[in-house]
Amino acid sequence: MNILYIFAHPEPKSFNSAMKEMAIRTLKDKGNNVRLSDLYVMDFKPVLDKNDFLQRKKTDSFNPFLEQMTASKEGTFSEDIMTEMEKIKWADVLIFQFPIFFTGMPAIMKGWIDRVFAAGFAFSPIKERVYENGLLKGKKAMMVISTGAEEDWYSSGGKHGDIHELLKYINHCTFEYVGMEVLDMHLTFAAGKMSSERGDEELARYMEKLNLLFPDS
Amino acid sequence: MNILYIFAHPEPKSFNSAMKEMAIRTLKDKGNNVRLSDLYVMDFKPVLDKNDFLQRKKTDSFNPFLEQMTASKEGTFSEDIMTEMEKIKWADVLIFQFPIFFTGMPAIMKGWIDRVFAAGFAFSPIKERVYENGLLKGKKAMMVISTGAEEDWYSSGGKHGDIHELLKYINHCTFEYVGMEVLDMHLTFAAGKMSSERGDEELARYMEKLNLLFPDS
Repeated sequence: MNILYIFAHPEPKSFNSAMKEMAIRTLKDKGNNVRLSDLYVMDFKPVLDKNDFLQRKKTDSFNPFLEQMTASKEGTFSEDIMTEMEKIKWADVLIFQFPIFFTGMPAIMKGWIDRVFAAGFAFSPIKERVYENGLLKGKKAMMVISTGAEEDWYSSGGKHGDIHELLKYINHCTFEYVGMEVLDMHLTFAAGKMSSERGDEELARYMEKLNLLFPDS
Repeated sequence: MNILYIFAHPEPKSFNSAMKEMAIRTLKDKGNNVRLSDLYVMDFKPVLDKNDFLQRKKTDSFNPFLEQMTASKEGTFSEDIMTEMEKIKWADVLIFQFPIFFTGMPAIMKGWIDRVFAAGFAFSPIKERVYENGLLKGKKAMMVISTGAEEDWYSSGGKHGDIHELLKYINHCTFEYVGMEVLDMHLTFAAGKMSSERGDEELARYMEKLNLLFPDS
């Protein structure tokens, strides 16, 4: 399978980075092709703005939706967006790994979604190309998330609430919206307080999940 | 009252901008002090990284949480963050206005939260200064949101699901987490298809909401 691994953590020596390295090795060992978008290393621009478009449909005012629809038709997104779109076209599976910041993706990854899952490329509400007819239909998405808080904070009745409830909206209104099938997410709680022993256990647990989801090609 | 208005839309001629202009005028007319963080105009940097810190507690690896805790104590955040923190200290109310992108804030505003609602400044899990004891206790937060989709898409049983369910996690795990009281949000559906007539109605409806929430000082 072709797997695009989208990763957002600023520190190469972090536990998140160790997970990412292990995952890519494991997936490749099983005969998959893996490409990596390491957003901090790429210094990926997260802000959707006028510079996303090589040409403009309308120059007197900036309508992001209209410009995305046009650029999807004409192939006139900026180069960084076109590169990521090519990776998506190539991929069967997209894995998004990130530490959760305030119930969501860090801004650098949220911006990847905002800019690359563009109208006309990933979905098209005008032609009802959303959900079961989304333009990325046939592909799969998976979130791999670390939290600062302990698991009990993220359980039903916990202080934050059930993390599955919280994240189902990202899965539904982002990945299912563009037509993708959502794979069971992988969660690592309290990643900031990781002893070396628990670190090994958590890496093994993630490897097991990957083995289950991606059997040998 | 002192009101900080945080705004994220790239186009000054947009309906979102018209709402923002009207809101600031209305709030000022009622005797409030209003400061504006217009994130696109400010070219606000959304990515939490090493450059957020004038000094580093730990230089061999970058631990965002540790550096935020230290910088909150020492006052050593980068200038753009310190400026926003001063505005928050000054404010009684924070209003966040944005078009919803994929169930959340545009990256430029998500990054404002990631960087400015820093550990040690807005919350401190170590000392249980979260939720009812959050460090921004006494202040209020309100989201003002426009959607591309029609209201029925965002209703219970609609394709996206109930927008109140979806957004309650942002309210809870972001604003309530840092101790703020959450004000009733204001929603404008299908903002991309705004006739001039409906635009006037929507502006009037928003003004009515503001009059209700912020009676004359």
